[in-house]
Amino acid sequence: MSTASNLPAVTVLGLGPMGRSLAGAFVRAGLRTTVWNRTPGKDGELTAQGAVGAVSAEEAVSASELVVVCVVNNEAADAILRQDAVTRALKGRTVVNLTADTPERARGTAQWAAEHGIGYLDGAIMTPAYSIGTPEAVFLHSGPRDLYEQHRPALEALGGTHTHLGEEIGRAATFDVALLDIFWTAMAGYAHAVAIARAEGVTARELASFAQGIAAILPPLFEQFAEDADSGTYSGEINPITSGASTMAHVVEVSESHGIDASVMRAVEGLSRRVIGLGHGSDGFMRVAEVLGRR
Amino acid sequence: MSTASNLPAVTVLGLGPMGRSLAGAFVRAGLRTTVWNRTPGKDGELTAQGAVGAVSAEEAVSASELVVVCVVNNEAADAILRQDAVTRALKGRTVVNLTADTPERARGTAQWAAEHGIGYLDGAIMTPAYSIGTPEAVFLHSGPRDLYEQHRPALEALGGTHTHLGEEIGRAATFDVALLDIFWTAMAGYAHAVAIARAEGVTARELASFAQGIAAILPPLFEQFAEDADSGTYSGEINPITSGASTMAHVVEVSESHGIDASVMRAVEGLSRRVIGLGHGSDGFMRVAEVLGRR
Ligand SMILES: NC(=O)c1ccc[n+]([C@@H]2O[C@H](COP(=O)([O-])OP(=O)(O)OC[C@H]3O[C@@H](n4cnc5c(N)ncnc54)[C@H](OP(=O)(O)O)[C@@H]3O)[C@@H](O)[C@H]2O)c1
Ligand SMILES: NC(=O)c1ccc[n+]([C@@H]2O[C@H](COP(=O)([O-])OP(=O)(O)OC[C@H]3O[C@@H](n4cnc5c(N)ncnc54)[C@H](OP(=O)(O)O)[C@@H]3O)[C@@H](O)[C@H]2O)c1
Repeated sequence: MSTASNLPAVTVLGLGPMGRSLAGAFVRAGLRTTVWNRTPGKDGELTAQGAVGAVSAEEAVSASELVVVCVVNNEAADAILRQDAVTRALKGRTVVNLTADTPERARGTAQWAAEHGIGYLDGAIMTPAYSIGTPEAVFLHSGPRDLYEQHRPALEALGGTHTHLGEEIGRAATFDVALLDIFWTAMAGYAHAVAIARAEGVTARELASFAQGIAAILPPLFEQFAEDADSGTYSGEINPITSGASTMAHVVEVSESHGIDASVMRAVEGLSRRVIGLGHGSDGFMRVAEVLGRR
Repeated sequence: MSTASNLPAVTVLGLGPMGRSLAGAFVRAGLRTTVWNRTPGKDGELTAQGAVGAVSAEEAVSASELVVVCVVNNEAADAILRQDAVTRALKGRTVVNLTADTPERARGTAQWAAEHGIGYLDGAIMTPAYSIGTPEAVFLHSGPRDLYEQHRPALEALGGTHTHLGEEIGRAATFDVALLDIFWTAMAGYAHAVAIARAEGVTARELASFAQGIAAILPPLFEQFAEDADSGTYSGEINPITSGASTMAHVVEVSESHGIDASVMRAVEGLSRRVIGLGHGSDGFMRVAEVLGRR
């Protein structure tokens, strides 16, 4: 399939589950899409759909003004981008780095890009690979606003919502890390809940609808606790942390009575006990956000 | 206000935030409601609405066939119920224990109740105090089905949905502990995310809508991962645990670079690294549920 379109050409570096989803969405949106992956053989489905498979990263970046990179972390991104031939080929083009990493490392890559005359935007994807190309996808971006506006039409071909968080290049990574923090911690809670439920003869299936119910009460609480955190008033009127700590201890107890590792909840309970020990036992749980950084 | 109603009378022992909400809902539903709390002075608003304030637990339980107890934990419930005079007064009546504790302790209280000719149902409340009396409230129950059916009309006066999970008295506590596990772990992730966002100059307010977005992707994942857990097939095709562990390391790194305690995420990452070390790096995160109980 050959596509003739007004949309710009795009190169995707990295064909893991996410890179493949991005490239697939670009192809389906009609962009001339060039793809490359360190380990060959990942582009079969994409080239069958009309993507161009490049034989080297240098060839891949030379094919498009816009280069999207999405690999496991920035060290991997650097291993691709900072090869001399690739860096030279990138001059005058724009890299949109949708790889997850820290704000510090985003700043480092931005500095390298500036030193080599390469446009640079840093971004993050907050939804699973299968959301790409659907309205559910969520993309965060940061970096020069004009560069973002220039490449926005191509990026929006990925579907979903795109938010430019500001010019400071570390913003997308900051939000990403904070949101991954919530995500993985919650997932760990779920995996652990399944483990203790099973030890008590309850299947994951039986637990699932109730677990979904618990997840559903989080958004309004996140809203309410954001106010608490920003204002520094951690009212425990509805649920004092002493009450919460008592139920955390139950989780640890049931867990360990079945020989199940309780390290995560032990850490959560420990933070709550520190809050209580510091004299804030009648405050709400969010007071934990304060003591986390206390020396 | 004196109420003459077909609905049975009910006693509520324990007037913390949750006990007060339960008693308030009973009063509003027109039940003759007697209340008592260890520390006096908590029943002012309730008696103004028509509840009867008892001067002792013994007097309180003597006033109703149905006695609802909701205190901090079962040790506190025992401290009230297992006083000789109270135990004697409870004979032939039914205790519905809506206190959060472990399945083991629910079984212990059930045995004590059986030995003293007291009907016993164990329950758990999965939604915040302010949900009581609204359609959002979620109650779990376990114990003899006939006893449950007998007291169901009174319990349903509390609003929300009531689920009888089975006759085994520990079931409600098992679900409760598993669901509190998810809840507190997720809340810890949120508090920690707020702490690192703030260290990078992002307010809780700015993060909130995205945090809510992350919470919104949990329910379908819980559904999907329940299948994984029950079938023992932990496909990492969409997101291998190696990829997740890399982003967990970013959370730890950003966190500690700001002097913020990362003990919770260190534990989560540690579990993931164990999964990888056991040769399951291409599996999905839910494989963690297996290694948690591995000796
Ligand atoms: N999957 C999701 O649902 C999802 C959701 C949100 C965000 N993300 C983020 O998207 C990014 C990509 O994730 P992914 O799911 O596609 O899988 P991944 O396992 O995180 O990354 C795999 C990709 O990284 C490449 N890579 C690893 N080390 C490399 C190196 N040293 N040099 C060059 N390339 C290297 C792999 O190439 P090889 O094939 O040669 O190993 C492959 O293309 C990650 O930052 C992830 O956190 C993913
Ligand atoms: N609040 C919520 O949003 C919520 C949500 C779901 C489930 N729950 C569960 O509901 C139960 C009650 O919670 P809560 O919010 O009302 O507050 P709580 O702080 O967990 O419990 C306070 C109640 O426990 C009593 N108590 C503590 N130690 C006692 C003892 N040794 N002897 C007698 N009474 C004792 C207190 O009496 P004093 O006033 O005399 O100290 C007070 O009535 C807990 O199991 C909690 O996990 C609460």
